[in-house]
Parts: sequence; structure tokens; C-alpha cells
Amino acid sequence: MLTAAYVGDRTIDVREADATPPGPGQVQIRVAYTGLCGTDLHILHGSMDARVQMPLVFGHEMSGSIAALGEGVDGWAVGDGVTVMPLSWDGTCPACRAGNEHICQNLDFIGIDSPGSLQGLWNVPVETLVRLPAGIALDHAALVEPVAVAVHDVRRAELAAGDKAVVIGGGPIGVLIACVARHVGAEVLVIELDEKRRAQIEQLGFSTLDPRERDQVAVVEEWTDGAGADVVFEVSGAAAAVRGATGLAKVRGTIVVVAIHPTPREIDLQRMFWRELRLLGARVYQRTDFETAVELVADGVIPTDLLITRIVPLSATAEAFAGLEAGRAMKILVDVEGQA
Amino acid sequence: MLTAAYVGDRTIDVREADATPPGPGQVQIRVAYTGLCGTDLHILHGSMDARVQMPLVFGHEMSGSIAALGEGVDGWAVGDGVTVMPLSWDGTCPACRAGNEHICQNLDFIGIDSPGSLQGLWNVPVETLVRLPAGIALDHAALVEPVAVAVHDVRRAELAAGDKAVVIGGGPIGVLIACVARHVGAEVLVIELDEKRRAQIEQLGFSTLDPRERDQVAVVEEWTDGAGADVVFEVSGAAAAVRGATGLAKVRGTIVVVAIHPTPREIDLQRMFWRELRLLGARVYQRTDFETAVELVADGVIPTDLLITRIVPLSATAEAFAGLEAGRAMKILVDVEGQA
Repeated sequence: MLTAAYVGDRTIDVREADATPPGPGQVQIRVAYTGLCGTDLHILHGSMDARVQMPLVFGHEMSGSIAALGEGVDGWAVGDGVTVMPLSWDGTCPACRAGNEHICQNLDFIGIDSPGSLQGLWNVPVETLVRLPAGIALDHAALVEPVAVAVHDVRRAELAAGDKAVVIGGGPIGVLIACVARHVGAEVLVIELDEKRRAQIEQLGFSTLDPRERDQVAVVEEWTDGAGADVVFEVSGAAAAVRGATGLAKVRGTIVVVAIHPTPREIDLQRMFWRELRLLGARVYQRTDFETAVELVADGVIPTDLLITRIVPLSATAEAFAGLEAGRAMKILVDVEGQA
Repeated sequence: MLTAAYVGDRTIDVREADATPPGPGQVQIRVAYTGLCGTDLHILHGSMDARVQMPLVFGHEMSGSIAALGEGVDGWAVGDGVTVMPLSWDGTCPACRAGNEHICQNLDFIGIDSPGSLQGLWNVPVETLVRLPAGIALDHAALVEPVAVAVHDVRRAELAAGDKAVVIGGGPIGVLIACVARHVGAEVLVIELDEKRRAQIEQLGFSTLDPRERDQVAVVEEWTDGAGADVVFEVSGAAAAVRGATGLAKVRGTIVVVAIHPTPREIDLQRMFWRELRLLGARVYQRTDFETAVELVADGVIPTDLLITRIVPLSATAEAFAGLEAGRAMKILVDVEGQA
């Protein structure tokens, strides 16, 4: 089978490898599609070299079908359509014991800490499988993982019908959050600097704002009759966005930090105090988020076709990352099966 | 009657003034004691000059008894022991309409935005009165307001019995938070730089830590069996404390920003994300907090005698502030009645 591995030095090596049979409690998946995301880009840029073991076959947004069952696996059959919730926890750390397994203090994030889905036949623990409904398109289903991130963020924000939400940063996760927020009945405004992205987002039916053109605080004040937004999602990763986010939220409003900020950021704590704001970190997802995400994709709530910028063969993984770096692509999928 | 007013230029003017009778819906209080706090010090330092109208009779932590009733006031009698929740809201702004009157977007904080209790006879809206139980010492009762702040902070943190809480900053509010946290059944560690303050805090039965002597993260990790603290109260106002607070909280732990940070502060958002932390702003109190605070003071839960550093006459208000600036005093009360 063909695999795509990060081998250090911003290099991806596409090479042939022998598939291994699934071990006890494992399932072998015939990977159909793997989506590339910002975390993969961080890996490629070497930002996670301290954490990853090279060569690393990466990838963690995927769809496929079961190719073989390992010893002791019940309830699944060869051919079942699946996606994978790529988290493996120890079950014994304080976070796990408190029911927060998704933030296990010794979490194995599959595709980062252990081999991922940029390979034709992929062995994973059976517990990570999430069933896909019959009839779902496998290219669409490769978006379930990022949709689960968005579902988790919206759920953590306790966003409700009738709420007004601001999404700062209209990349793939920002757009998915907007879609999920709209689905729960919220009104959404997306703040995005890039003109082409704004056009794409407006095509999906969302209001957008370029904060260099209009005063974002004044716009949100007017939109919310002077109250401020119920929830602000910070998905841009920009220092200026963090500084500005506190000015957009209502009294007792919520700011969810979705983006990864590698260095400490300045926050207006005076405003946090003055309005009794709530700032929440949100990380990955829990099983319920994944299951909801499958439903949203299957039900057509997520405009998957508009979000998938293109699909490339596994041999073109490196070029696909170059496209991702250029910043205009929403979601690029690697067609793994076509190459397996 | 004698009054103490901030007149600008770091100056307090103690002068005679005529008392005015209470207007409709007002009550006139014979003020017994007024406590001085950090906010008063901010006023004296000119930091709130844009907000206050000079000369400002300030003071908002107090106890006293009713001297006269204005027109239309029911349910109160001359001689009733009272304290005042010094908030007056408009009832019509978005925050009020959402039930957050204590953060009214047009809040009148009595003692800052309108005249306070450093005067012998003080007129306040009847709605601000909080009844004191018979037998409570009026010097102790002057601590109800800061205790209500602590009660609000602990309630906002959702601190529960068995939790472990870190309080950063062992000034008056930090110590009161520690007392309230212990009362709800939490274990408390107070981080404080000043040696004499640490000694005072230990005298109250709390563990303390000098973060320059021992690694605070290592101490909290050990104390919590590797989990981290359930709640961290940031009461110091220091930039370094904010940077360090995220390292002390458990997965899904809470950090409450109690101190006022006049400039934006750096926060480790990577850690906020990694542990799904929750950062909460907390401001003043709601009526339930005030009523709980009265009970805690009346029941002897708050070590009022240990916290009241000294009591000075109204004529010595300026010297009392100088003592507060020196930073070693916990709480200084002004004996207003003795001078009225």
C-alpha cells in the first residue's frame, strides 16, 4: 500500500509499505479519504517535532470501510462504513477519572502521537470507530472530524436558538462553527480579513465583516441592540483578534478560544471583569459530538460540496499542503483508496 | 455633620456639611462605620477622575442604623440596623433585562458615581438596604460588603465541598475568599509574596506559599495528586500572577479574575485550550451574596477581629489611606458615628 509520511525538514515522503494485519481489539480500515488540516500543517512545519516520531504517517480526518477485524472484535463487519474518533486515552489519569477522557493527561492523538490515516490500510482500536450511515458519500464523511470540532465548540459555548454569535476567522473550522451555530438556531456574523473567503462565506448565507472597513464593536452593538454578542468564537489565532474579542461579548457573554495560540496573548481583563465574561478553552470533541457530526453531514446540514476545495491523489499530498499553506483552500481531501 | 470627600489631587477634605432629609423612596442612615478599600484608593489616586464628580464623599463598605424614613418607605423603622448594597441600576438596559442588574450597563455605584458613606447621615434608595440581625457588632457589619464580594466570587466559581482552591494574592479580598471557600468545604492554598501577610494568613489557619521560594506548579500538582486545582482565584492584580494562573488549574478547572487589571494581560491560551479551562470575570455581588455575607459575619464565620487592623476617627481618614497604601493593613474602618 502507499503511505504519506512526515519525515522532518518540511518534507513528506510518499512510499510503498506493507500492510500489517489488525492486532487484538483492532480493526483494519480501508481508508477512502483523508482531509488535511491546520494541525497537519503544524506537523509539516516542524512545530510539533518534539512530540512526533518520524517518519510519521499522519492524517486524522478520514472516512473508509472495514477491511478486516482483529481478534476479539464484536459488533462490526467487513465492509461497514466508518470514520474514526482519533483519541485514545489511558482511563486512569485525573482528567479521565473526572469524565474528561478527551483531554486525558496522557492522550494519544492518533495521527499525531501514533500513525494516522494517510495509508491504504490503517489499523485502529475498535473503540475509536464511529459508524457511518448507509448512503453517506465517503468524501463528505471525511469532514466528520472537523465538524465534530465545531459541534464541540458550539456545545461548550452553550449556544442556544435565538442567540447571536460572532465567529472571528473564516477558515474551515470557523465556517463549520458558523454552520453548526446556524443549525442550532443562532444568528451568525463571521469576521474575516480575506476578501475571497468572505465571498465564499457569504455564498453560504452568512453575514461577514472586514474589521478594517467597519468598526467591529459598533457593528455588533448595532446588530445586538446594544447588548453585545452572546458568544464569540475566536478561530483566527491572531493576537489582535484576542484583544478585540472581549469588546464584542454581552454582559455574561462567552468567548470560546478555538484557535491554537502558541504564545501568550494579551486579553482585556478589565472588560472580562466589567462584563463578567466567560472565556472557555475548547479542545477536540467527545463521542456525542462525533455522533452529532455524522448526523449533520448525513442530513446535508453541512455544505460539504462547497467546503471541499479539491480532492488529490495520495501521491500529490505534498502539493496539497502547499495549496493549504497558500491559505485560500477550505478543505483539501486526499483520495487514499484510489492509490492503495 | 462631618464628611470626608475626595477633592482631586490625591487630597481628602474633611469638612462640616448640612445633612439633607431623605427624599421620597429614600432612607437616611446614621452611618456607624465605613471600611476603606482598594477602589477608594484608586479614587484617591485619581485613576477614576474621569468617572467621579468632585468633591466626592466616598465610601461604600458600611454599617449603621436608620435615622429617618423618606416618603413612601414601608417595612423599615427608625433604629433598624442596616448595611447597604451600593448598587443602583436602571432596570432597562440589556444586562438588566437579562437579570444581571448588578452589571447594569448604566450602573450607579453608590460611593463612586454618587455620594457614599463617609458622612454622618447618608441618604440611600430604600431598595439598597440590607437588614442586619439584632446583636451583630456594627464594626463587624462594616465588612459585609467585601464579604459579599468574596461570596459572589466563590459562588461564580461554583466551588464545592471537597474542592481545592488556590487564592493568588492574600490582601483583604483574597483572605475573605479563602474564608468563604473554606466555609463551603474547600481546601485552600493562598499564594502571597509578603512575609508578614503570609504569617497573618497562616494564623487564620490557611496554607500559604511564596512562589519565589517554591515552584507553585509543583506544589499544586503534588497537593492535588497531579490533577491541578479545581479553582484559582486571581486576586493579586499582578501580570505574573495571570501568566502563572493557567498552570495551576486542573482539566476543565476555573480561574476567576477578581482583581482589577487596568491594562491587558498576557494569558497562556495554549493552556486554556489544552486543559479546556474556564476563565471568569466576577464583579461585585447580587442580593443573595449580600444576604449570605450578613449571615457569615453574624455567625462568626469571618474572623472579623483579626481582619480589622484598626479603627480611626473620620478626621483621620487621610492618614488611614496612607496606612492602606503602605500595604500592610488588612482592613481599616472609619468610625463615622463617633464624629457625627
